[in-house]
Amino acid sequence: MENSNNGVTTPKGFRATGVACGLKKTGALDLALVVSDSDCACAGVFTTNRVQAAPVLYDKETLAHASRRRAIRVVVANSGCANACTGDAGLADTRETAEATARALGCRADQVLVLSTGVIGQRLPMDKLRAGIADAAPRVSPDGGADASRAIMTTDTRPKVSAISHLPYAIGGMAKGAGMIHPNMATMLSVITTDAKIEPELLDRALRAAVGVSFNRISIDGDMSTNDTLLVLANGASGYAIHNTQQAAEFTGELTQVCTDLAKQLVRDGEGATKFVEIAITGARDESEAVRVAKSIANSPLTKTALYGGDANWGRVVAAAGYSGVAVEPSHMKLWFGDVNVFANGMPTDFDEADSTRAIAGKDISIRLDLGMGSASATVWTCDLSHDYVTINGKYRT
Amino acid sequence: MENSNNGVTTPKGFRATGVACGLKKTGALDLALVVSDSDCACAGVFTTNRVQAAPVLYDKETLAHASRRRAIRVVVANSGCANACTGDAGLADTRETAEATARALGCRADQVLVLSTGVIGQRLPMDKLRAGIADAAPRVSPDGGADASRAIMTTDTRPKVSAISHLPYAIGGMAKGAGMIHPNMATMLSVITTDAKIEPELLDRALRAAVGVSFNRISIDGDMSTNDTLLVLANGASGYAIHNTQQAAEFTGELTQVCTDLAKQLVRDGEGATKFVEIAITGARDESEAVRVAKSIANSPLTKTALYGGDANWGRVVAAAGYSGVAVEPSHMKLWFGDVNVFANGMPTDFDEADSTRAIAGKDISIRLDLGMGSASATVWTCDLSHDYVTINGKYRT
Repeated sequence: MENSNNGVTTPKGFRATGVACGLKKTGALDLALVVSDSDCACAGVFTTNRVQAAPVLYDKETLAHASRRRAIRVVVANSGCANACTGDAGLADTRETAEATARALGCRADQVLVLSTGVIGQRLPMDKLRAGIADAAPRVSPDGGADASRAIMTTDTRPKVSAISHLPYAIGGMAKGAGMIHPNMATMLSVITTDAKIEPELLDRALRAAVGVSFNRISIDGDMSTNDTLLVLANGASGYAIHNTQQAAEFTGELTQVCTDLAKQLVRDGEGATKFVEIAITGARDESEAVRVAKSIANSPLTKTALYGGDANWGRVVAAAGYSGVAVEPSHMKLWFGDVNVFANGMPTDFDEADSTRAIAGKDISIRLDLGMGSASATVWTCDLSHDYVTINGKYRT
Repeated sequence: MENSNNGVTTPKGFRATGVACGLKKTGALDLALVVSDSDCACAGVFTTNRVQAAPVLYDKETLAHASRRRAIRVVVANSGCANACTGDAGLADTRETAEATARALGCRADQVLVLSTGVIGQRLPMDKLRAGIADAAPRVSPDGGADASRAIMTTDTRPKVSAISHLPYAIGGMAKGAGMIHPNMATMLSVITTDAKIEPELLDRALRAAVGVSFNRISIDGDMSTNDTLLVLANGASGYAIHNTQQAAEFTGELTQVCTDLAKQLVRDGEGATKFVEIAITGARDESEAVRVAKSIANSPLTKTALYGGDANWGRVVAAAGYSGVAVEPSHMKLWFGDVNVFANGMPTDFDEADSTRAIAGKDISIRLDLGMGSASATVWTCDLSHDYVTINGKYRT
């Protein structure tokens, strides 16, 4: 993965910027624009929460129109306010955001998608937002991806960008995460751009495949947001068209790489995270069972606090597998911390406690559980649960 | 609820004790005996975790025999070691525990049930346990319920006992909880005694009804233990027999009171808990949906940390209802913190922030969410998620 700071402006024909318009009390960047020079095919995945923020409802409605999802020009994203649980007034605010952005950039309002992240239940301060849009529009530039990625941060401690540019086309992306990160997609905000030429339907299929094994395989705290959205925009500026099966498979693979890179960055920067934990399940009867077991472990507060404390308390991992809802068989299970096999045949092996402690002492922890029931596997990424998580979330709004 | 410290020895014909036999490094009480002077009808509910500790497997096997479940005499319980994930050797240790207890008390081994709680994956130190049983057996007394309740504590900061004695029969109970407390029953260790005379089948039915609205309605961290067991023993010593429907209903009601009292005590003493939170769902289509929504809120780390921090972040409650899996409709929902209505018609009301903050400032917090979809309701109890929870569980085994 190339470490381009430009993210969304890596592909040809995209410009972006990030400005501060006063939505964040700190004065940090809080408004991002991502603009394509030409019409884009667009696909999106959204939170499955029954409580959906106004911009989620708005973008889904826009992308439901076949003509609109092949003519998207702009994504406008704000941090500092989620515009969720704000009723019809909040929806009107989102609509006005799109209209103001369209006016400032000289396109139609139905070519603008809107993202919001931040506190739930507060109205957008539209005066600040209108001024911010007017300020940002003339500033969009082919180097603006870095600023845009900073403008969507909330409790993130660093921006997340990723890009691939070694092919005839490029893919670039940015994301924000931190808390309320949970599988079933849509777990954060992310915008991905590409200058490949691709039909919206093919783009949608590639996106769902990529998300299934990247963003849907991470968990920070098991909460699921009202705002999570991932948008991918393809403007065709590279002149390289994706149509045959092999090209589509290759594109999906590259998109998956960008999504996986961003997803792992979200986990590494999870609220209060001190450790990055890879949980690999093997020997499952099918992939969905492997994922269920992995997520049960990834969401276990007892497992996560033990990893934070450096306590190789493998029994909690076994217990979390046991209550996953999958019919696991303890006597068939084998568990490793790093390369230390700690559990087999229904009981602990004769491993050295010092070895298992060492295996979880670093910042990168690998846990592997073989269920001994089949040949399917899945990997999920999570982080530990620390004092700082509690501190950050106990006082989020203040 | 009478606040008898005697708990399990409140009903006639029960004796108990708690001794220290060295399973806990601190030298605290770690072995409890509860003994009936005559044969008891017995019923139990057990963890639904697929990974079950040796004593769980052993007790279930014993109670599966119709003749045995009407002739139980003794419960022997140890803290400091869960005897879980210990394979066939662990099962042999449990069997030997029952046999040693039977010898010491002069009954048959199949009249003894065994409970263990503590660290997963370590063998019971049988030499210490044998010595402890020999020490404890002569000490059982009609005043020993308090010591027994202390001997089953792990990270509990105080013993949990409850009793009802204003009827022709009495019911007494003890429980331990702290972490790994989660619905679907079997969430802790508890022993309940009664001197009512009742058939095992009727006792079992009463127990399941009582547990359904008490222990199954609490959650501390969403983890589910490998050892959770609740046993109820009825020795008939009061001479009062439960047979007709009205008597059974009354007995179930009283048993529910004892279970609810113990369950709430578990929540109040949850690991690191600083607040007791009652989550009442009304307006649900049916009770199971009400429970699902309540538990989704009760298990939301973001909600629990906000309550800990005194942040009336009601949006997290609405979001947790939204991802509960129940088809809630945001515009129909009404949410109260205490008596402050904070959310209605899909948006915040014009409540005063100071009022909502005050509503969650105390040690007892009441959250009510009306779903506006029907007339079913359910109440769940949980606690907040604090720095101390992380501290306790980061270093549990050391």
